[in-house]
Amino acid sequence: MAKEKLVKEITAMDEDFAKWYTDVVSKAELMDYSSVKGCMIIRPYGYAIWENIQSILNSMFKATGHENVYMPMFIPESLLQKEKDHVEGFAPEVAWVTHGGNEKLEERFCVRPTSETLFCDHYKDIIQSYRDLPKLYNQWCSVVRWEKTTRPFLRSREFLWQEGHTIHATAEEAQAETVQMLNVYADFAENYLAIPVVKGVKTEKERFAGAENTYTIEALMHDGKALQSATSHYFGDGFAKAFGIQYTDKDNKLTHPFQTSWGCTTRLIGAVIMTHGDDNGLVLPPAIAPTQLIVIPIATHKAGVTEKATEIYEKVNKICRAKIDLGEQSPGWKFAEYEMKGVPLRLELGPRDIENNQCVICRRDNGEKIVVSLDELEDKISQLLAAVHEGMFNKALERRNQMTYDAHNSEEMKEIADNKPGFIRAMWCGERECEDALKESVGVTSRCIPFNEEQLSDTCVCCGKPAKHMLYWGKAY
Amino acid sequence: MAKEKLVKEITAMDEDFAKWYTDVVSKAELMDYSSVKGCMIIRPYGYAIWENIQSILNSMFKATGHENVYMPMFIPESLLQKEKDHVEGFAPEVAWVTHGGNEKLEERFCVRPTSETLFCDHYKDIIQSYRDLPKLYNQWCSVVRWEKTTRPFLRSREFLWQEGHTIHATAEEAQAETVQMLNVYADFAENYLAIPVVKGVKTEKERFAGAENTYTIEALMHDGKALQSATSHYFGDGFAKAFGIQYTDKDNKLTHPFQTSWGCTTRLIGAVIMTHGDDNGLVLPPAIAPTQLIVIPIATHKAGVTEKATEIYEKVNKICRAKIDLGEQSPGWKFAEYEMKGVPLRLELGPRDIENNQCVICRRDNGEKIVVSLDELEDKISQLLAAVHEGMFNKALERRNQMTYDAHNSEEMKEIADNKPGFIRAMWCGERECEDALKESVGVTSRCIPFNEEQLSDTCVCCGKPAKHMLYWGKAY
Repeated sequence: MAKEKLVKEITAMDEDFAKWYTDVVSKAELMDYSSVKGCMIIRPYGYAIWENIQSILNSMFKATGHENVYMPMFIPESLLQKEKDHVEGFAPEVAWVTHGGNEKLEERFCVRPTSETLFCDHYKDIIQSYRDLPKLYNQWCSVVRWEKTTRPFLRSREFLWQEGHTIHATAEEAQAETVQMLNVYADFAENYLAIPVVKGVKTEKERFAGAENTYTIEALMHDGKALQSATSHYFGDGFAKAFGIQYTDKDNKLTHPFQTSWGCTTRLIGAVIMTHGDDNGLVLPPAIAPTQLIVIPIATHKAGVTEKATEIYEKVNKICRAKIDLGEQSPGWKFAEYEMKGVPLRLELGPRDIENNQCVICRRDNGEKIVVSLDELEDKISQLLAAVHEGMFNKALERRNQMTYDAHNSEEMKEIADNKPGFIRAMWCGERECEDALKESVGVTSRCIPFNEEQLSDTCVCCGKPAKHMLYWGKAY
Repeated sequence: MAKEKLVKEITAMDEDFAKWYTDVVSKAELMDYSSVKGCMIIRPYGYAIWENIQSILNSMFKATGHENVYMPMFIPESLLQKEKDHVEGFAPEVAWVTHGGNEKLEERFCVRPTSETLFCDHYKDIIQSYRDLPKLYNQWCSVVRWEKTTRPFLRSREFLWQEGHTIHATAEEAQAETVQMLNVYADFAENYLAIPVVKGVKTEKERFAGAENTYTIEALMHDGKALQSATSHYFGDGFAKAFGIQYTDKDNKLTHPFQTSWGCTTRLIGAVIMTHGDDNGLVLPPAIAPTQLIVIPIATHKAGVTEKATEIYEKVNKICRAKIDLGEQSPGWKFAEYEMKGVPLRLELGPRDIENNQCVICRRDNGEKIVVSLDELEDKISQLLAAVHEGMFNKALERRNQMTYDAHNSEEMKEIADNKPGFIRAMWCGERECEDALKESVGVTSRCIPFNEEQLSDTCVCCGKPAKHMLYWGKAY
């Protein structure tokens, strides 16, 4: 009864995916709306997911030699304007600070939408010699982009992220860094978030403002829309030239260094929800789930049940992030509650289980119930957490494969785009005109040229001229 | 030679303490100035110290039941104005955002100087019943206060901090929380930063804007100035009334809950520098030192030295945060470098040491050199790290005791304030007039009424009327 009530509060996915999404983020208490339009409150459960994401990524960044720093949150207007493409890309969507206390500022500042300009300004001061290179910096912070339409985690005026900024003696080194960090993101998405991603490079049109190349990982959501999940940019020496960053190389010659930046955001939480969630709520990958296993005792009025459940909880809490719910609500209500919260494993223990020296473990990802002897609990839980991850990844991969279509001409592409949500793979001549035309006529945008291109045909799906690349297309968040 | 050069770059403490401080923060590469006046860049070495502070405090907060959240960085002007005292305290020093992209905002926002108003606005939405209480929230973020004069780490327009915000069913519970968190800060300051602190309560004049009581830990810097190092505020139900936060209690009656907030900032890094530093640079407490031990091989041109030093480094890196310097510079240059960076222990290893199966460990806090057998290295290093902490704490405590003076009348107080930097303890009638008068005539501000008051005399040091409290006074940062 209680369960039914709870589940009814979430709109069915098939009925209205957007409503399903906002229901899940609210009911699972990941976020709340704030009095500042377009800015959200990240509640404890949502923030705990972000802390797990941070902690894993931070280790991966440190393992690849990066150090954390903190730059100011403000950028003077004159500094933002130093790199032409960059300011054109960002100026229309920044928040401007014009007054400090009661005084008007001499020069207005924007709240950082991204920090390339600040890092460049700093590099100019601290880099003189080849001995000062490379600098491999990262920062965790919040940034602001004044978006017109916003959605929790996916697009908000303020969001949390990390932004890596590195500077190198040679173009080769910087290019290798750009690709390395894309691979770190892909590794993280697949092996921790259980989200299969397409790795590739953006077309010139979709590049980051000021970049020579933008690499991306693209994931496919439940509704067939694409989500750009992390990006890595190669800047060449464009920013260094704009900001006057030079170093003396080994031959005592003044030279411009080469730069990269790369970032991912709280949007990843949105990707997790829309990749794995179902009509009962969240389904969280074990690696980032704040609670990996919930212990729910059954028939606690019977002697010894609470004690035994507590004993088991204390045991399993040593090998995973466990919790026990000894609240007054019915087991059914609790089942629904932790299903909605996406807890990967539920451990049920009743009087008969105790008699038989066993418990029942239920997997959130597929509902499977497994009877486990209490003597082999620890091993079994580790195995099951790994199995849940694998199950989630495979399910998502299978769905993505089913929802990926090849198009050989623009009519076929339109037919697919109109009727089959998902990725469309098609050949492309490399011209901006065709990209614009397909956006206009088919309603899709280019996602990336994948690292693993296939030769689907010899001609561009749009103009029929010789094809240069295979592109992934889609409707995107 | 190299060493001399390096040391000369730092102004002597006695010559000019302020210059010594800015020399240390720059030369040790803790921070750099940015193009935004009053905002600083926290460089990798400084940020690594902050990460260690965060990590320890975060564990302490979680152990006392707190959860992390994230609130928006903007506060609409109308929201800031809801609590009268609060807005009066903060409005004169906030940064105002007036434009989003090219459009003027309907209502301007300030960048949060502190987030009481945002938390209250959220609590209003999520608290209905006594079952929803308490909420024990904390957030790590940056805040902005448009200060006129700034100094690295001590007072900057943007700084990093944590702000705890809790809400409780009863006044008693909220008061207990306020004191508990002050004790957490004091524990952290003394047992991790090696900084002795005076725990106490602020006078009404020095209270946080909107608080019924402000508790503080006050530390004494090398130059005899006081540094407020963390504060914990009890709000009563004032904010709850101003924001309309109510809950249904167990008797089904609508009631206002009670609140607290508490915070500490990157200012703690300033406290560490000015408590422990010396003319050779930083002296870092082992608990927060990014590198706890540096291995420096001597005479690396001799066969086997580099190899043996590397072997030892790998061994000790398992029991503490160690580094090895295999660079081309001379040992003397390296000694000076890591002294400046405040690394607690230096391990020297030369050919003769290897012959004797020993090494030399030098303590940064007192320069003591200890010959250690390589067979007992691990145990000895753990002991030495503990000894360094204890030595630093005791040295700071002794200095504070020597620099704490009792005054029995205002002439004596002025005499001390003019000639002896440090804390002044004196009795007080409890009236604001005397506090103002002493600030005017003696040039000191009240720091706190300590938890451990002593009855120094029966009369107020200023007006001669019966004394109510003993106060700590000082010149403050």
